[in-house]
Amino acid sequence: MTTAVRIDASRLWQTLQTFATFGATPGGGVTRLALSEEDKQGRDTLRAWAQQAGFHCEVDELGNMFMRRPGLRPDLAPVMVGSHADSQPLGGNYDGIYGVLAGLEVLRTLNDRHIQTERDILLVNWTNEEGARFAPAMLASGVWAGVFSRDYALGRQDRHGISVGEALHHIGYAGERAARAQPLHACYELHIEQGPILEAEGINAGVVHAAMGQRWFDITIEGFAAHAGTTPMNLRRDALCGFAELVLAVEKIGKQAGDDGRATVGMAQITPGSRNVVPGAVFCSVEFRHPELQVLNEMEAQLAQALDTLRQRNLRLLSEKIFDYPPLNFDAGCIRRIEKAVHSLGYTQRRMVSGAGHDACYINRVAPTAMIFIPCVKGISHNEEERISPQWAEGGANVLLATLLLAANES
Amino acid sequence: MTTAVRIDASRLWQTLQTFATFGATPGGGVTRLALSEEDKQGRDTLRAWAQQAGFHCEVDELGNMFMRRPGLRPDLAPVMVGSHADSQPLGGNYDGIYGVLAGLEVLRTLNDRHIQTERDILLVNWTNEEGARFAPAMLASGVWAGVFSRDYALGRQDRHGISVGEALHHIGYAGERAARAQPLHACYELHIEQGPILEAEGINAGVVHAAMGQRWFDITIEGFAAHAGTTPMNLRRDALCGFAELVLAVEKIGKQAGDDGRATVGMAQITPGSRNVVPGAVFCSVEFRHPELQVLNEMEAQLAQALDTLRQRNLRLLSEKIFDYPPLNFDAGCIRRIEKAVHSLGYTQRRMVSGAGHDACYINRVAPTAMIFIPCVKGISHNEEERISPQWAEGGANVLLATLLLAANES
Repeated sequence: MTTAVRIDASRLWQTLQTFATFGATPGGGVTRLALSEEDKQGRDTLRAWAQQAGFHCEVDELGNMFMRRPGLRPDLAPVMVGSHADSQPLGGNYDGIYGVLAGLEVLRTLNDRHIQTERDILLVNWTNEEGARFAPAMLASGVWAGVFSRDYALGRQDRHGISVGEALHHIGYAGERAARAQPLHACYELHIEQGPILEAEGINAGVVHAAMGQRWFDITIEGFAAHAGTTPMNLRRDALCGFAELVLAVEKIGKQAGDDGRATVGMAQITPGSRNVVPGAVFCSVEFRHPELQVLNEMEAQLAQALDTLRQRNLRLLSEKIFDYPPLNFDAGCIRRIEKAVHSLGYTQRRMVSGAGHDACYINRVAPTAMIFIPCVKGISHNEEERISPQWAEGGANVLLATLLLAANES
Repeated sequence: MTTAVRIDASRLWQTLQTFATFGATPGGGVTRLALSEEDKQGRDTLRAWAQQAGFHCEVDELGNMFMRRPGLRPDLAPVMVGSHADSQPLGGNYDGIYGVLAGLEVLRTLNDRHIQTERDILLVNWTNEEGARFAPAMLASGVWAGVFSRDYALGRQDRHGISVGEALHHIGYAGERAARAQPLHACYELHIEQGPILEAEGINAGVVHAAMGQRWFDITIEGFAAHAGTTPMNLRRDALCGFAELVLAVEKIGKQAGDDGRATVGMAQITPGSRNVVPGAVFCSVEFRHPELQVLNEMEAQLAQALDTLRQRNLRLLSEKIFDYPPLNFDAGCIRRIEKAVHSLGYTQRRMVSGAGHDACYINRVAPTAMIFIPCVKGISHNEEERISPQWAEGGANVLLATLLLAANES
C-alpha cells in the first residue's frame, strides 16, 4: 500500500446521493436541465457547501461558478478542477456532477488534513454543458475559452423561447464577472467514462490523452414512392433499400477505423413511411469520430464512395457536412501528473481517448488540460440507469487529489 | 380492323374530367374521401347521369349505388360492372372512378346503339374502397360479399370519431336495401393497373386472372441504445444495423420469388432516433405478396431465417404476422370472355396478377368475377400525378363493352 493522502469515501458518496435528489426522477435518475429550478437547487447547495468549507464562490456572466481554495502563492496561476451540474432529461446521477463533487471532496480533504498548496485551486461548475435545454452543448465553457461570444450564448433560447440570459436572471445566477479565460497552471476534469471499456477491462482510471474529432453529415436518399403490391422488384427505386446499404457501409467504415473508430447512423426519417408503399425518400444522419485527422479524412472519403455505389440503384443522393470538430490532444504535462498520481495510489490505469465532448475540450484551447475517467456500469449514460460503484467514485477522487497536489505545489 | 361496337371516346374523357372536379386539388389530383361532401357531389352527379340515361339507381344500407340497365330476361341473373368513386387523400383522377365511369359510358353506348342485352347490366359504385377515411379498405363490397357484418361496417369510425353510419346519413346515402350478395352471372371491374408493366410493355389490356395473397408482419428489433462517441463498434448492439440487414434480406426474398414476387419494408420507427445515440430499437413492417400460396410460405420461412441470422448481432427479435390474405384466382369463364373481347378489338393483351386489393377480390368470393387493367403513366397511383391517356381510357372501355356484350347475351 502507498502512503498517499485519501479522500473521505463515505462523505463523497453521501454528497453525491444528496445532490441526486435535485431533479430526482421516479426512474432513479435526474432531470436537472441547465438553469432550471432543479439546477438552481443544486447550485445553491453547492455554493452553501463550498462556503461552509470556507471557499469564496464567484459567479460569472454565464452563470459559471468558481469556488476558490487559496494557496500560499496568489501570484502564481491557479489550478482548475471541475465539470458541470446540469443533466440530460431523464439523465443519470453522475454525468458531470461527479467531477464537481469529487473536486469539492478533494478541497474538503485538504482542509481536514490542513494541507496548504502553493497555488490556488479553483473548483468550477460550468453552465449548460449538456446542451439539452440550450443548444449547443458546452456553451459556457465555450464562451470562457473564446469559442462563442458572450452575446451569442446569452441569446440562445430553449424550446419555450426563454433565453440563457433570461434564465440566468430568473434563478439568480447572472453574475458580474466576465466569462473570459484567465491564466491557469493546469486544468483537470474528472468524469465517468460513459463507455464500457474501463469496466470491461477492470481498470480504475482512464488517463484521457485526446478527444476524438467529429464529423456529422445530413444525407438525403431520393428514390420513387410506389405501390408495394403493383410495382415489381426490378422496377423499384426503393430509397430504404439504399439506406440499408448505407447503414451497413457506415458500420464497416467504423470497424475498419480501428479501436478508436466510431461510425453511427442514429436517426432516419422514411417518406412516406406507410406499410404498403415502397419508400420514396430517406433523410438520415451519419456521424464519424476518430482521434486522428487523417483517419477522419479517410472515413469521409469512404462515405463518399458508399454513396456513389448507391447511385447504381438509380437513387439520388444529397450529402451535407453539418459539423466538423477537429481531434485534440490534451496537455502532456497534465497527463504525466495523472499517471504519476495513479501509480502512487497503486491503481491500474490505461490511456484512453474521449469519444464525447466535454468542457475540458474547450478549456484545453486556452490552458493546459487533461481528463480522468472512472468506470460506469456497462457504459450506460444519458440514462436514468447510469450507475457507478462507491469504490469507483472513491478511486477517481483519490486520483484527482493526488494529481492536484502535484500540480498545485509546482512553483 | 374489326367491326366491334365502340364507345364514345370523347364523351368518356369529358365525363372523367368533369368528375375529377369533385374534390380537385391544386396539385391536379383529387381528395374525395369516402362519404365526404366531395364524395356526395360525385355520387349526386353519377346518379343524375345514370337517371338521365334512363337507369334506375338503388342505394343499399352501406351506400353502395346500383344502376340498372334492364335486359330482355329479368329472370336471368344480371351482369355486374363497376368500381369505386372514393379516393385517397391527394389521390389521382382515375383510381376507381375510371371503372365506374367507363361502365356508365358502356351503358350509354348501348343506349345510343339501341342494343338490347338478354341480361340486366348492373353498374355499381362501392362505398369506401380505399379505406383512407374508414379502415379497413373494401369495406362495403366486403359486407356485400359476407366478409364483414353490416354492423361492424356501420360502426367503423374516421379519425374524428364519425362512424360510417353517421356519415351515410349526413350525405343522404343510407339506403334501405340490404347490403347482401345477389346471384350474378358475371362481374367485371375495370381499373388502372397502378403498376408500370402495361405501359412498359406497350400493351392495351391486362387480363387479371388472379390477385396476390398478402402477408403482413410487425417486426421489433431490440439492441441497446448507447453513446455514439464512447461505445466501440465491437461492443455495440445496434438495432439499426440489424434492421439494415433485414431490409436487404427482405429485398432479396422478393427478387428470388420471381416476377410476381413483392417484398417491402415500408415503415420503420427508430428509438431513440438521435444523431449521436446508437439506436436501441427499431419497429418496422414487412409485407410479402405473391399469387401462389406455396411461394408465400417460402417467403415467410426465409423471413424467419433472416431474423435468425440477426441474433448473431446479439439483438432480440419479435415478429408477429398481423394480416394473412390468401391468393385468389378469378373466374375462368369471366377471363375467357375478356380475352375473346380484346382479340375481337384487335388490341394487345397479357394475363396479369393484381398486386393490390380491389372490390372484385371480395365479389369473387360470391360470384364469377374478373378484372381488366389499363396502363397508367409510370405506374403512379395514390398520387396527384396519376395519369392515363385518352387512348388508354378508350381502349379499356371498349374491352369492357365487348366483354359485357358477351356475358349479358348468354342465356
